[in-house]
Amino acid sequence: MFIDINCDMGESFGQYEIGNDTSILPYITSSNIACGFHGGDPFHIEKTIKQAINYGVQIGAHPSYPDLNGFGRRYMQIDQSELKAIIKYQIAAIKGLVESLGSTLKYVKPHGALYNQAAKSETESRVIISALREMDEKLFLMGLAGSLTEKVCKEENIKFIAEAFADRKYESNGTLMSRAKKGSVIFDPTTAAAQVLSIVLDKCVVTDDGAKIPIHAQSICIHGDNPAAVDILKKIDSEFIKHNIQKRSFAI
Amino acid sequence: MFIDINCDMGESFGQYEIGNDTSILPYITSSNIACGFHGGDPFHIEKTIKQAINYGVQIGAHPSYPDLNGFGRRYMQIDQSELKAIIKYQIAAIKGLVESLGSTLKYVKPHGALYNQAAKSETESRVIISALREMDEKLFLMGLAGSLTEKVCKEENIKFIAEAFADRKYESNGTLMSRAKKGSVIFDPTTAAAQVLSIVLDKCVVTDDGAKIPIHAQSICIHGDNPAAVDILKKIDSEFIKHNIQKRSFAI
Amino acid sequence: MFIDINCDMGESFGQYEIGNDTSILPYITSSNIACGFHGGDPFHIEKTIKQAINYGVQIGAHPSYPDLNGFGRRYMQIDQSELKAIIKYQIAAIKGLVESLGSTLKYVKPHGALYNQAAKSETESRVIISALREMDEKLFLMGLAGSLTEKVCKEENIKFIAEAFADRKYESNGTLMSRAKKGSVIFDPTTAAAQVLSIVLDKCVVTDDGAKIPIHAQSICIHGDNPAAVDILKKIDSEFIKHNIQKRSFAI
Amino acid sequence: MFIDINCDMGESFGQYEIGNDTSILPYITSSNIACGFHGGDPFHIEKTIKQAINYGVQIGAHPSYPDLNGFGRRYMQIDQSELKAIIKYQIAAIKGLVESLGSTLKYVKPHGALYNQAAKSETESRVIISALREMDEKLFLMGLAGSLTEKVCKEENIKFIAEAFADRKYESNGTLMSRAKKGSVIFDPTTAAAQVLSIVLDKCVVTDDGAKIPIHAQSICIHGDNPAAVDILKKIDSEFIKHNIQKRSFAI
Repeated sequence: MFIDINCDMGESFGQYEIGNDTSILPYITSSNIACGFHGGDPFHIEKTIKQAINYGVQIGAHPSYPDLNGFGRRYMQIDQSELKAIIKYQIAAIKGLVESLGSTLKYVKPHGALYNQAAKSETESRVIISALREMDEKLFLMGLAGSLTEKVCKEENIKFIAEAFADRKYESNGTLMSRAKKGSVIFDPTTAAAQVLSIVLDKCVVTDDGAKIPIHAQSICIHGDNPAAVDILKKIDSEFIKHNIQKRSFAI
Repeated sequence: MFIDINCDMGESFGQYEIGNDTSILPYITSSNIACGFHGGDPFHIEKTIKQAINYGVQIGAHPSYPDLNGFGRRYMQIDQSELKAIIKYQIAAIKGLVESLGSTLKYVKPHGALYNQAAKSETESRVIISALREMDEKLFLMGLAGSLTEKVCKEENIKFIAEAFADRKYESNGTLMSRAKKGSVIFDPTTAAAQVLSIVLDKCVVTDDGAKIPIHAQSICIHGDNPAAVDILKKIDSEFIKHNIQKRSFAI
Repeated sequence: MFIDINCDMGESFGQYEIGNDTSILPYITSSNIACGFHGGDPFHIEKTIKQAINYGVQIGAHPSYPDLNGFGRRYMQIDQSELKAIIKYQIAAIKGLVESLGSTLKYVKPHGALYNQAAKSETESRVIISALREMDEKLFLMGLAGSLTEKVCKEENIKFIAEAFADRKYESNGTLMSRAKKGSVIFDPTTAAAQVLSIVLDKCVVTDDGAKIPIHAQSICIHGDNPAAVDILKKIDSEFIKHNIQKRSFAI
Repeated sequence: MFIDINCDMGESFGQYEIGNDTSILPYITSSNIACGFHGGDPFHIEKTIKQAINYGVQIGAHPSYPDLNGFGRRYMQIDQSELKAIIKYQIAAIKGLVESLGSTLKYVKPHGALYNQAAKSETESRVIISALREMDEKLFLMGLAGSLTEKVCKEENIKFIAEAFADRKYESNGTLMSRAKKGSVIFDPTTAAAQVLSIVLDKCVVTDDGAKIPIHAQSICIHGDNPAAVDILKKIDSEFIKHNIQKRSFAI
């Protein structure tokens, strides 16, 4: 039994540090690299790609709405043709940097509000898929397990990686609880690791109100700006050893 | 006898239109595509790349200091390691978009203050060369004829394209007259075309104070935001026919 | 009989020129000054304020969602507390510049998507009103005639200036036809002037499908980026003379 | 004997936290509030102003070159007329927010590279002074003790507050050691407090190479992004008690 572990990376911007990339990289198998539109600047992006390569962690592009002040977490109503170009530009920037360092871009995971919007809208899912397809047919698309993004990827023959979250609570309809709600982020390593085990072994998560919802995921996300991220990753590691689960990149 | 004609392109940003790309593309052989740091946004950049491909005009990346408000025309004191990443990011974005549209990025021409700084500084020239080399060894570097950029490229075995200007006056030391000075931009098609002929046929330009300075150029630049650009290009065309000069991309 | 004529101003950004402020100022009585978030930079903003003062045109702040690339025309889902601060900051910047030049800020008119959102949402209307009230109780708020913004202003005892448009088509529900729709912007001076006369004299506009909808407006907007703006303003002037209508600022 | 203690504040941006404003405010008498051009966004700026008012800490505007990615620490070659407008806009934004919260803006302290440039250049000093004078004649200007800024302020009858640094090493020519040099920032509270005492009591600092240079300062700066800031401030407090030095705002 095996699973991929992914984390958002490279989101620091100038003097502004965010996340804990160096401490987290040893524990993950996929790194979603910020593209500069919600976070990240060329220097931090390239530095993080180098680190990911050094740790043998596979690399994805993490494109966003163009909104640094909102960290890509605010919905923006952008025309489809512009949004496609925005996403292509970001993938191109990361792809070129990764290749200049001798590695290969493996996947795309939309960030924040763009991710959530795609999860519930075929329109944005199709825009992302067009962008990905025009950039590189071989790229995987990572998105929310059970979402419309997954459905559209299947229709369009795009290799989809269903993702579940270690450190975010779920609503009973299968969506992530909004960050605006208290308790939406899990900081306790034991709780987070238990949710991961439930996803990997039982293919489900338990929501706040006790509902058990099915989840079929090939990758687990930890948020790098969660201050407990490293502790959660360590706890997951020890649980994985107990249950004989292996961490493995999906694109080998 | 032949020469390349290049123009800055794709610099429009959202509702802000600049330049006259559609009218100019039929007359040029090389298009320097804005990368989004001094001008251009993903939508306009991609649209311009498509147009350049349609016109069979070869494509270069036109990276800049990160300064949209200053249109990349203000010097910024940026650490070499950061500047290299900034340039690589921009080349990567354009390279990826060009390749996604089935074409090939052929060259890099630094923009504005970065161009001028490199012309007089080995440091910035070497930073640009490192960025270019890490992105793609096959890329040409376009820069000011007779500048330090040219000298360093020769030392470093980088394919250099020496550029001269149709619509900018020269100082007697071979540098461009500052845009801050009155008369630095040539708007008269006849004067501009005469300067081009002088460059192509006599390998020299005549400065304001009557000095004749030698220039060895493989490409001639017209500024797209010069309102007379199309008229200048037409005048150049008619002079080229008279003198049996051909326009030709340098990277065929 | 009299009416105010307003126009968006100061939206140029660095090398990017937009609108035609110098030509339009002689014809209007109120200038909505961009605050730098959808357009405008400090240099162009201050220059435009100086020009407005010279022409005796009263000055309003024109705050926007923070979206230069989208020119403030894309809806953004921003928390109320952040949105209020964003609006206050913009009003503060314009107010301070206006006062430094010896004049007084008279009103606030939200821009683009923020304007449209407020027109249909009490939430955004109340956020704008709180921002305005905290900045200066004496400020007028300009918004769409007949909108929720007007309704909330009345409830909250805010001095509201109902605005109608010379150069935009209306839907039969009284909202502006989306810019995405063909024909939404009126370029013909005669058509635009007729719509203005209809608003001023008959308190109504005629929609595309022939419906006559009532409009009670104290100000008429012309868009500065409409290439026909000056011609429309001249035509309005000549019609106003015929019908003995005076142009007059609302805040005298 | 008394002295002012100032600290840069309000520099957080969206999800990016920088500095430790809440912990530092109880220890200082002047807060330099970021204006959004090198750091700070409207929400964080307003929040910090509120906190400063609550702690009775006087408020200054902290304008910068427009360079968020470089945190205002990179020199930019900006035309004087544009630079003046850039500074006025920033002062206006802070002034308006401060007044909307019932307090008064007391001073201006340029940030980072703009501060350093003004310290060695009469040109930039005069631009800052013009901006300040046009915004509010009553404002103090805070700058480097012994700098050209101080000299020009005296010539121009501007109230100057000479500043010295608790946590930065000095060069023997009286300038700050560049951040690029190792050891330029002091992290040890005892060393920093000793430097402060030396400034307050002996009107001098001792440089790395043992030189004793005279400094006449009315305010001492602690950098909020120095992780040791609170410990340094506590140490200064205990030394001040021992030596009967009082902390006091300069603008009472």
